[in-house]
This record gives sequence, structure tokens and C-alpha cells, in this order.
Amino acid sequence: MSVYIRSDILRMSGYVAGEQPSAQSSVVKLNTNENPYRASAKIYEAIRQVLDAGLSRYPDPFANEFRAAAARKFDIEPAMILCGNGSDDLLTILTRTFVGSGELLRLPYPTYILYRSLAEIQGAKHEIVQFNTDWSLPDKFYSGKTDLRLAFLPNPNSPSGTIIPKQRILEIAEKLPCPLVVDEAYADFADESCIDLVGRCERIIVIRTLSKSYSLAGLRFGFLVAQPELVNQMMKVKDSYNCDSISIAAATAAINDNEWLAENTKKIINTRKILTEKMRAIGFNVPDSNANFTWNTKPDIDVRLIYEYLKSHGTLVRYMNYPEWGDGLRISVGTEEQINNCIKLIQNYTNKSL
Amino acid sequence: MSVYIRSDILRMSGYVAGEQPSAQSSVVKLNTNENPYRASAKIYEAIRQVLDAGLSRYPDPFANEFRAAAARKFDIEPAMILCGNGSDDLLTILTRTFVGSGELLRLPYPTYILYRSLAEIQGAKHEIVQFNTDWSLPDKFYSGKTDLRLAFLPNPNSPSGTIIPKQRILEIAEKLPCPLVVDEAYADFADESCIDLVGRCERIIVIRTLSKSYSLAGLRFGFLVAQPELVNQMMKVKDSYNCDSISIAAATAAINDNEWLAENTKKIINTRKILTEKMRAIGFNVPDSNANFTWNTKPDIDVRLIYEYLKSHGTLVRYMNYPEWGDGLRISVGTEEQINNCIKLIQNYTNKSL
Repeated sequence: MSVYIRSDILRMSGYVAGEQPSAQSSVVKLNTNENPYRASAKIYEAIRQVLDAGLSRYPDPFANEFRAAAARKFDIEPAMILCGNGSDDLLTILTRTFVGSGELLRLPYPTYILYRSLAEIQGAKHEIVQFNTDWSLPDKFYSGKTDLRLAFLPNPNSPSGTIIPKQRILEIAEKLPCPLVVDEAYADFADESCIDLVGRCERIIVIRTLSKSYSLAGLRFGFLVAQPELVNQMMKVKDSYNCDSISIAAATAAINDNEWLAENTKKIINTRKILTEKMRAIGFNVPDSNANFTWNTKPDIDVRLIYEYLKSHGTLVRYMNYPEWGDGLRISVGTEEQINNCIKLIQNYTNKSL
Repeated sequence: MSVYIRSDILRMSGYVAGEQPSAQSSVVKLNTNENPYRASAKIYEAIRQVLDAGLSRYPDPFANEFRAAAARKFDIEPAMILCGNGSDDLLTILTRTFVGSGELLRLPYPTYILYRSLAEIQGAKHEIVQFNTDWSLPDKFYSGKTDLRLAFLPNPNSPSGTIIPKQRILEIAEKLPCPLVVDEAYADFADESCIDLVGRCERIIVIRTLSKSYSLAGLRFGFLVAQPELVNQMMKVKDSYNCDSISIAAATAAINDNEWLAENTKKIINTRKILTEKMRAIGFNVPDSNANFTWNTKPDIDVRLIYEYLKSHGTLVRYMNYPEWGDGLRISVGTEEQINNCIKLIQNYTNKSL
């Protein structure tokens, strides 16, 4: 049957997301950067109102209720906002809007593996620029090729949790010949955001997700901020009803609830500090994180075995191995109790293996 | 900024869905084939259970709970099922899996306008084969071009509501050089379905949506049935978490509730009969419908004016004009009361204009 399939698709191996044990499982999940706390009660209330009104009608294809609320929050025009079924949907829409088959896309490395899969599905070429060892970005990221159609830059980056300063991002965007997608999936845990740069450089597009900082991974809602002219073109590419009635109402309630967000991110950032300090005390290299996870490397031991040990003790973290770069453990910031337990397990393991 | 956009996207006009007045509006919507009745209470109960468990975790990327339930219902393997964020998501996945840039896709005409937009977004070519005037399909639909990569066939078709018999579909699929997507969005209102043909011809792929027959347009959930080998390739193309936790649980409850479905489709089919007979009595041509809408043409009057008249009286129907074919009104089957009111308005209009 492979004769029917596009060769680009046959050839690719496909993106594999982090392990998702069943909802009933008691496993402590520190592997896919979910938020350990329950979302704001206001969100659940908004969903219940949708259920009372019923689900038989199609949703608003533009999610204008959310756009108005997010525009108020970020002091931008609603026409600069495009909503998506999670930020993955937006990454797909961006790739299809800007990059044709055989055209070129640029990525940093190591980073979110999905970007490469998106290029492959589109039949596009991709070019990789390695981060410097301090996780800054070399000038190579904007130089060279003028046939470049799109560049992806997660900020904060995954797996490192590190951030490229705003000034540097503006500099990169001004020198690139194509749009620069700043993927701010984790920006609510960071010191700064590039949303206000969109008005200063037409090539900057910022993506946000509600999965992490709003505890809504199960809901699938993201949005991007770009020039209205670009948003209008992307509207043609998205599915008409890509966001459902429930997620639009829930996301609107979420984006309006600044108080909940401030409290939640404060807790996560406090626990991140504990996680970082204790892992460093055990001997891991841990770059300063601006996200809800940390990246932990230790060249003198096989960290995959720690991943296995943790898994056998009911805690999932993410083991990642980047060819020509190295491996490490990406640990999501759970509750303080979950993180303390995880660190105790790692201490047990490292003490035993000494 | 258009220099950044793919020329395929710039050139296209973009699919425009039917009007969606705000949820608060009192307009009677007979324009986008929504179901006028509230979904099964079991669905709302399943959603409430998800809310109690919380939304902070990612959903099951494969929606295996739904696949198991649908496999039982249709007596097929779960591996033959792929779930999507509405059937539009599945149509996008199919196009991207089978049709490369510059490659050829075949469509009947007149039909669901989105298929053409999907070809345009993909940078693919499309070829149109007109239905015969009795809405049967000429042999041309499977003959000729061997470089064909995919054929779309909605069955029942929109706007006509007519059906191509199963035997004929099997014959077409066996003669085509590529997969045949039978879009069964309306099949629960029809006399037959092609799901059991998937096991008989590897080229047949059937799509279903829960938007119409399960009153869940606001939820966004569809699924397709294909050979497991094809499903595995399409898995690489879909977004990892294309269906959210709420829609998976709701869709599972829906597909298990055969009793609700039987009662609902019986009501719709009864009202469809009234709609068809009364419109014929007024002098419209109305082909026998197998869907939850009817197609109403009347060459001696300007039916667009009826659409306008109905709209000004708070009832939306869909006015459609197909170049080189003709125009008509597609009227969704609402409640009996809604349909009787709509027909009264049309009678008023036609009496006045005599």
C-alpha cells in the first residue's frame, strides 16, 4: 500500500511525543512539562456554561471572544491574533503558509524535535544551526542563505530552558530574510516576552500555548501574534473550525485570570529554584531555566540509567539524546513534594552507583 | 508582506464556512446542517467526569478509548481507525499524506467546496468530474489519468443529499489508481454506509463526523476508517494531540449510545420527509435526500431573494450558486416547528411574488 503514500511521508519516522500513561495511572509525570496544579476554577465554570448552552452548533471560526480578551491583556489589536488547536496546530499552519515543498526552513539545535517533522511533512528542507555551548545563538542563525522561508526559535528553548535576550531576537529578526517564529510556549515562566516586538518588526511572530502555564494541556489551545496581513493569510490555511466551543470559552476565562496565573507561576518558579539548586548540589550541570523544566546533564555517568531507575520507581522524566550534542534529563517542575521525592530517588541512585 | 507568503496561498481565496451568528442570537439556523436537538445526556455526563479529573495532562494522542468503542460498534479493528479534530482535520491529513505539491486530486461537482481549498493549500492540482443531472456519477470519475493521487467522494453528497449506491462505489474504487475517500459526514441519515467496504478494497477510506448525527458540531470530533498500514502513515502527519481530552471522552460516550442515535435520526428523517414533500408542493425540485438537509432548486425564480427574505425574517438557510451548474437553497432539517415555519415563510414569499 506504500505506493499510495507521498515519499516524504514514507521516508520520515514521525514525531514521538513523551510517554502518556493512562489517566488512571498513579505515575508522577515530570516528562512532558504539564502543570502539576489544577487550572483556575473560573475556567471550569466557563466550560460548564458552554455545556448548559449545548454543543450542537459550530463554534466561532475566529474565536473572536478570545481574541478580544487577549488583545486587551497584551495591548495589541485583535486582528493580530490567530487561535489554534494547541500551538502544534499553529506551527503546522505557519509551515504551510510560508514554506513550500522543497523550500528552506531554519532551526536551532538542540531544540523541540517537532519542527523538523513539520518540515518533513511539508516536503521542505531544513537547515540546523547549533546553539553555542552557553546556549546563546551564533550569528550564523541569520546569515547566509537568502532563499530561507521561515525560522523557528523557541524562547525559552527546550530542552535547555534558556532564553535569548529580546534585544538579540530583534537583531536576528531584522537581519533574517523571512519570518522568525518565536515559540513562547514557556514564556509565562520567563523574565521577558517578545509579544511587544511584533509591532516593531513585521517578521516577528510569537506563539503561545495555554497547555503549560494555564494547566490546560488536555484542552488544546494556543494562539499566535503577528501582523494582521500575515494573520489573514494564515486564516486561509487553518481548518475553519479548528478550535471548539469549549476550548474557546475556557481559554477566554484563562487569559482573563491574571491573578491565578501570577500565583501559579510564582509557585512553579520557586520549585524550579529548589530543583536547580539540589541537582547542582548532586553534581549535575543545570543551566538557569526560564521555563517549567530544567535540563540536567552529567557527562561522567549514564543518565539514561537514572531515567530507567526513576521510571521503575513510578516517576517519569524525559531522557533525551541529541546526536553530536549529548544526552540529559529534562525534568518538569512538579509540586514541591514531587520534586523533593524525585531528587531523593536521584540521590539514592547516585549514592548507590558511587 | 506578501513576499513572505507561499504563492499558492496568496492566490487562493480561502474557504468560507456558512454564517455563524453569535451563540446568543435567536436566529433559526438551517444553514450549516447542525442537529437541532441537544446531544445525549450521557455525553454531557462523560464531559463532567473529565472536568472533575482535570485538564492539566495531555490527552491520549491516539484516542484509543474511542477507537476501541468505534471498533466494537462497526465490527472492525481499532488499528483501522484514526481520530481527528472534526472531519476537516482528517481531510487535511488525507490530502497531506497522499497528495504532493503539483500532484493531482479528483473531485465530483457540485460538492463540498472545501475539497478544492485543501488541494490549493497543498499546492496540488485538482480535476473536476460533474455529476450527471440525476446526481449519479459518470465513469469518467475513475477513468483517464493514472497519475491521480486521491479522489474525494462525499456520500451522501452536499448540496444534493443524494447517494451513490455501495456497489457503484466499490466498482469506482476498484478501477481508480489511488485511494478513494468516501466522506460519510451524513451517513447516519442514509440507507447505507461503506464502512464494511474498507475490508474489501484497500483503496477505500471512509470518514465520519460526530458534528451532525450526534449534535456535536461545537465539539470537533471525526474519525476515519482505513487499512491499518494507511492509518499508520497518517499518524505521522496528524498533530500529536489533535483531539482533546473532553472530545475523546464525549465522542466515546456518543458512539456507545446507539439508542439516542436511532431516536434522533428517526426524528430528523421524519421531518426531512415533510420538508421534501412541502417544498415539492410549492414547486421546487428536490432530489430524495439521504442527509439532514435538502437541496431545493426552482429555475423560474431567483432563489437568492428567498434566502434574503428568510434571513430578514430570522431564518438562515444556505444559498449556493455553482458556476456552470446553477443555484439553489440548501435547507438543514431543523425541528418540525422550525421547518414548518420556514416553509410558511417561503410560501408567503412565493405567493406575494406571483
